Formats: sequence, C-alpha cells, structure tokens
Amino acid sequence: MPRPSIADRYDQAIADSFLASAGQGAGGLPGYLGIELVRFEPGRLWCRATIRDELLTPFGNAHGGVVAGIVDHITGVVVYPLLKPGQWAATTEIKLNYIAPVKAGLLETESSVVALTNRSAVVRGEVYGADHNLVCAAQGTLTIVDPRPG
Amino acid sequence: MPRPSIADRYDQAIADSFLASAGQGAGGLPGYLGIELVRFEPGRLWCRATIRDELLTPFGNAHGGVVAGIVDHITGVVVYPLLKPGQWAATTEIKLNYIAPVKAGLLETESSVVALTNRSAVVRGEVYGADHNLVCAAQGTLTIVDPRPG
Amino acid sequence: MPRPSIADRYDQAIADSFLASAGQGAGGLPGYLGIELVRFEPGRLWCRATIRDELLTPFGNAHGGVVAGIVDHITGVVVYPLLKPGQWAATTEIKLNYIAPVKAGLLETESSVVALTNRSAVVRGEVYGADHNLVCAAQGTLTIVDPRPG
Amino acid sequence: MPRPSIADRYDQAIADSFLASAGQGAGGLPGYLGIELVRFEPGRLWCRATIRDELLTPFGNAHGGVVAGIVDHITGVVVYPLLKPGQWAATTEIKLNYIAPVKAGLLETESSVVALTNRSAVVRGEVYGADHNLVCAAQGTLTIVDPRPG
Repeated sequence: MPRPSIADRYDQAIADSFLASAGQGAGGLPGYLGIELVRFEPGRLWCRATIRDELLTPFGNAHGGVVAGIVDHITGVVVYPLLKPGQWAATTEIKLNYIAPVKAGLLETESSVVALTNRSAVVRGEVYGADHNLVCAAQGTLTIVDPRPG
Repeated sequence: MPRPSIADRYDQAIADSFLASAGQGAGGLPGYLGIELVRFEPGRLWCRATIRDELLTPFGNAHGGVVAGIVDHITGVVVYPLLKPGQWAATTEIKLNYIAPVKAGLLETESSVVALTNRSAVVRGEVYGADHNLVCAAQGTLTIVDPRPG
Repeated sequence: MPRPSIADRYDQAIADSFLASAGQGAGGLPGYLGIELVRFEPGRLWCRATIRDELLTPFGNAHGGVVAGIVDHITGVVVYPLLKPGQWAATTEIKLNYIAPVKAGLLETESSVVALTNRSAVVRGEVYGADHNLVCAAQGTLTIVDPRPG
Repeated sequence: MPRPSIADRYDQAIADSFLASAGQGAGGLPGYLGIELVRFEPGRLWCRATIRDELLTPFGNAHGGVVAGIVDHITGVVVYPLLKPGQWAATTEIKLNYIAPVKAGLLETESSVVALTNRSAVVRGEVYGADHNLVCAAQGTLTIVDPRPG
C-alpha cells in the first residue's frame, strides 16, 4: 500500500472545527495549560500558550511537565486533519529536549508531521519563549487508531 | 573527581520534608495532576496520582500530557534528597514510552536514579495503572544547578 | 486480545539457536562490533562485546555509533525467543543515554523486555564498562513483523 | 554569558579540513559504514553513505545499528566547525525514529544544530533512502568538552 501523501490526506474542515472549538470548551489539561490553536497547514500547526504564575515552580520557571503537556498536545493535534472519520491518534512515545528555562508569559509553538503511514505518524514540535528563543524541541510517534466497529 | 555514591549523597531529612509538604501545598501542576509522594529510598521514589475525569480526553483516556507531567515530576523529585543545599535539578531531556491507555483512577509510580555525577543525573520512571499494569516507562536527564552566589 | 505473557511466549530452543550461532558466523555489523551473546532468560539477554582500538575515535573513546550499534543489537535480539515462527522484529525507535566514555576492552550488556504485545515490544538495554560501571542506558520500541504469506 | 550565534562561531577552515580528510583515512566505524562528508554550512552538514550487502541483516534490510552509527556520526561532526580549538563533542543522548527499512545502496543525510551554548548542542539528523524518502529522523544532545590543560 503506498504511503498516503500529507497534502492529499489534509482536510481543512477538520482543521477549521478544531480552531473553532479551541479556547472555548477545550477544558481539561489543554485548557489548564492555556493552549490556544492558531493556524493549521497540511501537516503543520501553530499554537500559543500563556504560562500563568500558577504553573511555575518555586524556582520561577515553568514546571517541566507544563512544557511536556503542551508538547504532547500540539504534536497530537497536528495529525487530526490527516485522519479518516472516526480515527484518533495516541502518543506512543515522545522525547523532549528542554533548551532554556520557561518564564511566565506567552509561548509560541510549531508542530509538524515528519512521516505518515496509515497506522502511525512521526511528529516534531518546537516551543518558543517570550524572546522567540527556542525553549523545547521534541520528536515522537503517534499511533493512529481506527474507530471501533459498532 | 570520583563520582558520588547515591547512598552517600542521600539525605533523609530532605526526603522527609518533601513527604511532609506533599499534598498539602504543592499546588501548581503537581497538585492539578493529583500527585502524592509516598516513600523515598536512596535514589528511589514511589508516588501515587489520582486521575480525575477532568483529565481525560473525549476518548476516555488520560491526556498524554497528564502522564508526561506526572513522569516529569516523579523523575525530578527523586533527585532532590541527593542534592547539596541550594542546588536544584532541571529536566534537560526526557523520553516516554506510552504502553497502555490510562483510565480514570489511581496510578502508582516508581522512579529511580540510574547514574549521578556532580552536574547531572540519568533517571528512569515507570507508571502503573489500576490493574498494576505498566502504562508508561521513561528515561531522561536532569541537570543539577548550583545556587547563585549571593 | 489479552497481552501475551513473556514467560508463556519464551522459546528456549530459539534462544539456544541464537547462542549456538553467535560469534561463529554472525558477520556484518554485530561481528564487526565484537558482540557475543552469553545467556538468555525469558525477556532478558546478557552479552559481551570487545572494543578494539579500531573502534575508538582520535580522542581515545569508542565512537558513539559503536555503542549505538551494540545497543540496537542487544535490544533487538532479546525479543526473538518471544516471537512466533517466521516473525521478526525491527527497531521503530530507540533512545540512548551515554553516561561515561567507553575505552577499549570488554563491555558487558543486559537487555530486557519491559512490555510485549502481539505487535510490538518496549525494551531497555544497559552497557557496562571495564570497571562494571554503567556507560549507556537505552529504551526503545520494536515492531513485530509477521512473515509474508507465500 | 550570551549564547553564541551559530553563524558567528562557524569556522569554514575546520569544515574544509573535515571535508578534505573524509573518505581518505577516516577509518574506524565511519569508514566501515561508508560515510562520506559532502558539504557544510553554519550549523548544517550533508553526507552520503553507501550501504554494502555486508551491512544488511538476513531479512535484507540494513541493521538498525548501521543507521544508528551513521546518525551518531553526522549529528556529531556537524558541530565541529562551531567549536573552539582543542574542544571536542561527545554524544550525551540521542533518540532515533526509524521510519522505513533501509536497503543496500546510497543514503543521503542532513544534520543540523538546533541550539548551541558554550557547553552543549542540541542537534537533529535525517537520513534519506534511495528513493529520497525519509528513513530515519533523530534528535540528540552533544556535550562540548574543553581541552585538558597541559
């Protein structure tokens, strides 16, 4: 079976529905972390996240788990406009390099699909700090799960 | 300089102070994720975390970022009883393998220091689900930061 | 489908055939790297490797790729006694932490299967240097591939 | 101390000396793996590698350790033109995603420095197969080591 092209699989309507719902009722962890989806392109996603003081450690930097949560989210959501109806994607593994401390304030992210098959995707994500400096770079794998027959 | 022994560096008083404060005023991300420290040994830490419904995705599993946040926390805290006064530890990189979906309920974790120098630690962490099955295994590096002079 | 038990799936005859062939005609990369299989248990494997001067960089340490090659091999072979006839295993991803420089001489390794399904395995590997000190720790995923019909 | 710019630190003479020596007397693992340096830019490196039949497993694909060795080499060498005289770089950790099987023949690689401080670098590497398809993507950390006084 030939590998599907990212451009061929991209569904703008799914991207638009994610953008429309983002920040309104996301709730849960993405809401707690202040993540806001900004823009999709085929295999690419840009987001923002606002780090509140509550998310800092006593040392004044964002908890590593905050950045990990943001990265897990942005590297997962980027895949959804490439999925078939009913499919979903689960992180199988991810590796993060923390490059600089993260302070309170605005983060910007970029995530991209590096490779895509019918069953998995390899993704990368980058997080940039208030000075537009790279603060985290990640690379991981998503497993694409088919809907249960029903 | 010879590598410090984990047993030699272990300070039970620091461990006890972490245990005493845990769950009372941790706040921030660890509080949000329901993490509770249970027990330290030299280079080892056991914790619990309770996954509330709020932390699940629409697919009924814990958001990957929830598990990532828990893992980042437990693999960081395990190092603190091995540090000198004023030092702190920052995750430099971490890699997580997600092995099974995580449902709402109780998680148990174990984290350990695999290697320790004066400037860094290599750590591992495991998270177990409600059935005591392994749901996540991680391996990462912490950088040990000296207190600022002053 | 319930997850297969590692003990249930272990086939000593496969392990024995690997041990019998090891070091005699392995050839290729494992032979070049001087890897020798020593002992299997269900989900575990111990090996040795001898680092020749030829495998050192101009700085006197083993090239990182030498250790990576050893780790890829030992974390792959550990799975074979757990596979069905005709199946094979391919590394999907692996992460290595290099903990100390590796000099010429004897290395000892241990690898283990952390989790196993019908389609994949999560594995860990450790490499110990001449002083029995940990020089590398790794964690990765293997995909289990079925034989082609035919 | 401000972070050094990759462009400011780049020394073309070092790059040229690597290119001049490559393929002539590299020997050791890089020679065994058939790696040939092609071109440097500040923070970037392009290489080729020729996979001989000897480097294949019985299943007809390149041994994972072959690709790991290539990736370790290209993500290390890319940093050298950015180092000060006498410094060298050691892989601290690296993570590889294997995306497609690698057959005998020509591979092309690209590696890049994602972040650089005076003490470490975060690097990425990609390997492309005979059809110019991505076969491996990696991300890792190098520690920059100062020359010994003396």
